[in-house]
Amino acid sequence: MQKKNISLDEAKKIIGENVAPIQRTEILKIKDLIKFNVFADRVLTTDVISSINVPPFDKSAMDGYAVKFEDTQNSSLENPVELKLSGSVFAGQTQTGKNKTTLKEIKSGECIYVTTGSILPINANAVVKIEDTKRDGNNVKIFKSPKLLENIGKEGEDIQKGNVLLRKGEILTPAKIGVLAALGVKETEVYSIPKVAIIGTGNEIIDIDKNLTPGKIYDINSYALAAVIKKAGCIPVRPKIAKDKEEILQKQLEEALQYDAVVISGGSSVGEKDLLSKVVESNGKILFHGVNIKPGKPTLFGNVNGKPVFGMPGNPASCLMNAYVFLLPALRKMAHISFERKIVKAKMSEKLRSNSDRHLFVTVKLENGYAKVVYKTSGAITSMSGADGFIEIPITKQVIEKDEGVEVNLF
Amino acid sequence: MQKKNISLDEAKKIIGENVAPIQRTEILKIKDLIKFNVFADRVLTTDVISSINVPPFDKSAMDGYAVKFEDTQNSSLENPVELKLSGSVFAGQTQTGKNKTTLKEIKSGECIYVTTGSILPINANAVVKIEDTKRDGNNVKIFKSPKLLENIGKEGEDIQKGNVLLRKGEILTPAKIGVLAALGVKETEVYSIPKVAIIGTGNEIIDIDKNLTPGKIYDINSYALAAVIKKAGCIPVRPKIAKDKEEILQKQLEEALQYDAVVISGGSSVGEKDLLSKVVESNGKILFHGVNIKPGKPTLFGNVNGKPVFGMPGNPASCLMNAYVFLLPALRKMAHISFERKIVKAKMSEKLRSNSDRHLFVTVKLENGYAKVVYKTSGAITSMSGADGFIEIPITKQVIEKDEGVEVNLF
Repeated sequence: MQKKNISLDEAKKIIGENVAPIQRTEILKIKDLIKFNVFADRVLTTDVISSINVPPFDKSAMDGYAVKFEDTQNSSLENPVELKLSGSVFAGQTQTGKNKTTLKEIKSGECIYVTTGSILPINANAVVKIEDTKRDGNNVKIFKSPKLLENIGKEGEDIQKGNVLLRKGEILTPAKIGVLAALGVKETEVYSIPKVAIIGTGNEIIDIDKNLTPGKIYDINSYALAAVIKKAGCIPVRPKIAKDKEEILQKQLEEALQYDAVVISGGSSVGEKDLLSKVVESNGKILFHGVNIKPGKPTLFGNVNGKPVFGMPGNPASCLMNAYVFLLPALRKMAHISFERKIVKAKMSEKLRSNSDRHLFVTVKLENGYAKVVYKTSGAITSMSGADGFIEIPITKQVIEKDEGVEVNLF
Repeated sequence: MQKKNISLDEAKKIIGENVAPIQRTEILKIKDLIKFNVFADRVLTTDVISSINVPPFDKSAMDGYAVKFEDTQNSSLENPVELKLSGSVFAGQTQTGKNKTTLKEIKSGECIYVTTGSILPINANAVVKIEDTKRDGNNVKIFKSPKLLENIGKEGEDIQKGNVLLRKGEILTPAKIGVLAALGVKETEVYSIPKVAIIGTGNEIIDIDKNLTPGKIYDINSYALAAVIKKAGCIPVRPKIAKDKEEILQKQLEEALQYDAVVISGGSSVGEKDLLSKVVESNGKILFHGVNIKPGKPTLFGNVNGKPVFGMPGNPASCLMNAYVFLLPALRKMAHISFERKIVKAKMSEKLRSNSDRHLFVTVKLENGYAKVVYKTSGAITSMSGADGFIEIPITKQVIEKDEGVEVNLF
């Protein structure tokens, strides 16, 4: 049943119940992930289990000398133990001969020079930092007794083979990308990024590449919506502007339904030309039409072929405010990315009366801890562009006093 | 003069003094800006001044009837004024005849049907919402007296020609992109996105597309660094891994210097093979080498040909932690984007001893308001990947008690 003029909370609830994380997946190359033009926030569809130990061998964590711990007890600056330098292993160096790994071996009374990351010689069980030694020809003076296993990175110390390292649903942060690289993972399965079609309606709307003729205005909403869709971690897909004709909107909607969600701006007011509700209704279901908020009252939300359809008001400030209130959290959910509003506390710079029986969103600018109203009209994009965020005034509240504490939702 | 083992604050100060917002600019097409694979955070190099009024004409803000305000005084449900319907203007409709705009005109006692966004007929000075009217053939009953200019969007109400709307240095948010669209701006000048070259050093390091042979480990740092560079709003450029040889590192650095900054991981520890400081010094200037922090002590920062060069430790956790502490804020500054750490308060889940005379960064996971240590070793990428953020323990503090309040810097 189509609901009319519902409360903000009910609208949020209905959207929440009718928007689901998308299940389409794709294979992502780790090398692509760090390209600048590939979206950063990708979400794993499966756990990542380590196929190797990291480090894959015992290694030196320092530049210095690998020793047998037993040989170096009671070393001190005054009474250094002296060991025979029997060789060196540099980081990355091990393979000697064809397909054969020969590890150097320490005998009692000997040490081997190692660098940070070197594979550890056989029998070595400590590394003495170079700063605590002095080389004298083929001998090395040890000025400090290492602890057992000191300065050694044990095989598997970071990651053990078979461990679950990353889990389904986790976002690939820099550190998690690092984990994939550590394992030599070349590609991994991630959820596809939701694609969101944008339709701007209105015979008066023209795209920015056209010349402005009398009675026409430039399409603001498609650009602002596309930017919000990107902010949500989704891909904006932009079909042409739909003229106010049922057949045209019908055709645009059909095309748009190949994507994961559809956002339509304009055409949802009550009046002779309310095409949007007609078209959504004849193709699917309107879940609500009209929310008791200001701006944004004529908002429509429906479901066509299992795809959420957001009908935003045509007024630019209403449309963009609605995009922050309804669309952004919904798209984050579709993209498997958690959503949290960034809120800062401020004081109201002037007395503010609600004068409305609707839940109000008022855009404000932050100045020295004060929230200053920048809202003009719902038709004005500058009601939004000069603002840092918005405050909410619930229906039950009539007045915010000067200096009263408010919470500002940052854009 | 090269500084050694300086404090965290001094290191931050030196970096701050030697990293500047880049001045290279480029022309950005607004249509490109909303493409999914184009970076969102672009910064204006100049003020944007409006060349038009928005709306460009007086328009109706509602579906309803445009009237002469004077004709409709004292209308009520009981005593409606009745007006003659003399025509209609739909949104987008005005041009009649060749290159000629004919606006409809209201005479006394008449009204004209208008839709939201319609250009206002001549002489109209109010619009009555359709809900407050009833049409009866060619007559319209007006049930409510409008106020003067009610439901009219005046020309220039949103934006006035000649106004400075956006300012140099502002980031193009969705609303500001909307402003550019409102003006029909097709392209604008923005600062170029800083390109940051990454060099991974170490003979033991191999890229993820290679097979792991004994003594080798996969390159973790280049991937984690690239992800942080993207997070900073910059473009990672990834040259090959440099072997530990002066000529090779020299060549890699030369190539890297065509970009705006260089990040090198590994090769900055003290020891026989400390090539990085040698190479940086012979090409430019080391500004510091060694910071009194843990992890991340061997960090190096220099300047070569006017480009900042960050020498990160080779240990993955040290490298990535340093990237968050030093690199991310520096790159944001280069990209003209403000940087603010996201901090949440938590309680320490266990007693934590510093045992160090260095400023400590300890990675933690947040669980029910508690910060739980996940830090293992500076060599372990899992010291970072399982963490939500990090806490800092200054040199002057030795112990954090269980349940003590801490501030967690979120990644």
